[in-house]
Amino acid sequence: MYKVLQDLTVVEGASFIAAPSCTLNMLQMGATVIRFDAIGGGLDYRRWPKAPNGASLYWEGLNKGKKSVALDLRNPEGRELALRLATAPGEGRGLFVTNYPVSGFLSHEALKARREDIISLRVMGWADGTQGVDYTANAGAGFPLMTGEPGLPGEKRPVNHVLPAWDLIAGAQAAFALLAAERERQKSGEGVEIRLPLGDIALSTLGTLGQVAEVMTEPEDRPSYGNDVFGAFGRDFKTADGRYIMLVALSPRQWTGLLTALGIEAEIAAVEAETGVSFAKDEGLRFEYREKINPVVEKAVAARTLDELAPLFRENGVCWEPYRTVREAVASDRFKEMGKPYHDVTHGSGLTYPTSDTPIDFHDRPSDVPTAAPRLGQDTDEVLSAFLGMSSGEIGRLHDDGIVAGADT
Amino acid sequence: MYKVLQDLTVVEGASFIAAPSCTLNMLQMGATVIRFDAIGGGLDYRRWPKAPNGASLYWEGLNKGKKSVALDLRNPEGRELALRLATAPGEGRGLFVTNYPVSGFLSHEALKARREDIISLRVMGWADGTQGVDYTANAGAGFPLMTGEPGLPGEKRPVNHVLPAWDLIAGAQAAFALLAAERERQKSGEGVEIRLPLGDIALSTLGTLGQVAEVMTEPEDRPSYGNDVFGAFGRDFKTADGRYIMLVALSPRQWTGLLTALGIEAEIAAVEAETGVSFAKDEGLRFEYREKINPVVEKAVAARTLDELAPLFRENGVCWEPYRTVREAVASDRFKEMGKPYHDVTHGSGLTYPTSDTPIDFHDRPSDVPTAAPRLGQDTDEVLSAFLGMSSGEIGRLHDDGIVAGADT
Repeated sequence: MYKVLQDLTVVEGASFIAAPSCTLNMLQMGATVIRFDAIGGGLDYRRWPKAPNGASLYWEGLNKGKKSVALDLRNPEGRELALRLATAPGEGRGLFVTNYPVSGFLSHEALKARREDIISLRVMGWADGTQGVDYTANAGAGFPLMTGEPGLPGEKRPVNHVLPAWDLIAGAQAAFALLAAERERQKSGEGVEIRLPLGDIALSTLGTLGQVAEVMTEPEDRPSYGNDVFGAFGRDFKTADGRYIMLVALSPRQWTGLLTALGIEAEIAAVEAETGVSFAKDEGLRFEYREKINPVVEKAVAARTLDELAPLFRENGVCWEPYRTVREAVASDRFKEMGKPYHDVTHGSGLTYPTSDTPIDFHDRPSDVPTAAPRLGQDTDEVLSAFLGMSSGEIGRLHDDGIVAGADT
Repeated sequence: MYKVLQDLTVVEGASFIAAPSCTLNMLQMGATVIRFDAIGGGLDYRRWPKAPNGASLYWEGLNKGKKSVALDLRNPEGRELALRLATAPGEGRGLFVTNYPVSGFLSHEALKARREDIISLRVMGWADGTQGVDYTANAGAGFPLMTGEPGLPGEKRPVNHVLPAWDLIAGAQAAFALLAAERERQKSGEGVEIRLPLGDIALSTLGTLGQVAEVMTEPEDRPSYGNDVFGAFGRDFKTADGRYIMLVALSPRQWTGLLTALGIEAEIAAVEAETGVSFAKDEGLRFEYREKINPVVEKAVAARTLDELAPLFRENGVCWEPYRTVREAVASDRFKEMGKPYHDVTHGSGLTYPTSDTPIDFHDRPSDVPTAAPRLGQDTDEVLSAFLGMSSGEIGRLHDDGIVAGADT
């Protein structure tokens, strides 16, 4: 955690991954994040994976370090408090992140009526307000029909990826958008309503990656190519001891390093002689002729164990990695040698486990270790008092009326 | 395209996806981006997908709107020019994005020696400087062993996802980090070296999603669950007319809407009676009992065509989407109804095709349409003149010596 955004406070009324990861990004750069939830927890409070004691490890991961306020959001007075939190006056405030509907009680208009320069950022499913989540945006944009075993779309079952990629892209885009808006507000004094639909992220990515232009110029849909990297050399291979490794060669150096490491220069030269092409400078040709190249690499990898391959790859600058389970990843040297390491932290659930920091490394800058996920509602009183300036009498009354709750409810 | 970052100029010396998408994010918010490449193009200049005329549609997608400068980067004078571009004096400058090695000629130290307050952002494979790309970071962090057909890691072949998710997350995180650093520089006057390893992004995400805590508390690795959404209801289903659709129910409303839309309340109630649990309020139970729920949904979906299902889903707020090919996605209403629409643009390749804007919607703010990808080197002279203040004589001499090139070389 860094302190570069320490003058900012972001209020979050949201659930699931995209919006909470936006504010987590802000927090890991030093911002204070106040998250409000329904008393008893929002829609994402019990999501898997869960600890043996029932606590959501998912929720803790996405909300670590945030201040938690519990409100009765079905009650008008609880909703009033949510609006007051989102629009609390003061410098470095007026930043609200949500996935509530466009026209609900947390609409931009309602927020702006209370704070003229509010910046609200709303993660949505689709731009028209219809339901959408990571998995449906992904299905609609075309990726699952290009994933998994080789085959044409329409001839095979789609394969969903497991990583909530669009949520995580949204969370990072949202943090970027928030800073861009806040930077402008410092100059112009004006706020803005930002909408960020997951579906639009997925569809605009097709343009970023050249895939819209591709369907405009190619008569056929791109099929699934299995584990092969489209347009270059790359695939999974199996070692003599049954381990899978991912091997990639995008650059000429990665390619020649691979041939040297595996001692297959002569065999690949024979393929080049047979086909009349040269692979060193054109990664596209490595893809076109993958059915001739892959068996050569396959045989060479299968002849050696992972422990035999690792030093050969290292010495020759090969781009590769063993496929790991998450458990293996956490036990690996890669995990130990991260630029921004994990730290053991005891969380609201009572559990202590390695806790990640931002992957962004402000090199040579001091940084604090990650902090714990809260218990739900643990900061209710502090936030109402210090952030909203409420008296202890008022806060006590809200507790008595069941409008707010602390951590023990 | 917005103008909120129009006072910023970012210089890019990079290739592939992560770093170029960082500066594309900046550009789509109004920043000027100057990208320098080796004469003839860098490592990513010919990447697939390609147009019939050989132009890289991938390169155009990632570099649209940028100014292109072509330099002989093997020549000391060309390298000197790269350093001058990265560190050019002036407000709103001194922002450099790269994926060159930490200790090469574009090291932070070399940059800082020329501009004390330089902000350099370096996308890396791994924090220790070893080779890594999206596909290898993904393999090393555990996701491919949880993807594809159900099965335990170690008993099945990994499945790579096709989306370069880590690159895109890195590109958005990098834009966020750049703005956070620039915001701080405005106050302190200090620059910073930012390192962003793809591998660290993947490994820290395991913490964000609760998956490190999961392996600490669970004795077994999480298997692959096929297309089922872990810990909730969600999967692909096939319609009567052979179309695949993705159906998801995370929230109680999504769940009850789904039952109503498909008319399967009674059948699900029978499953609840049989198992003694209630699915409406606990999405985890929907996952635990998926082998009883999925066949009910399967049968109901298989009894109707896509056209019959669509209105039922719409009326009941179901979270779903048909699986589309990219071509179908581009032809769909979703594409037409994007918050930030595509526009037809003629690019450096001479091709005209729908071109994406940022997915970030600064609602009710005026925005410009996306601009064309450059031809390689088309802006060399303009940048050397206007950005570096070089005379036409100097620029002519650089051309004569082959140190720089324009678009026709």
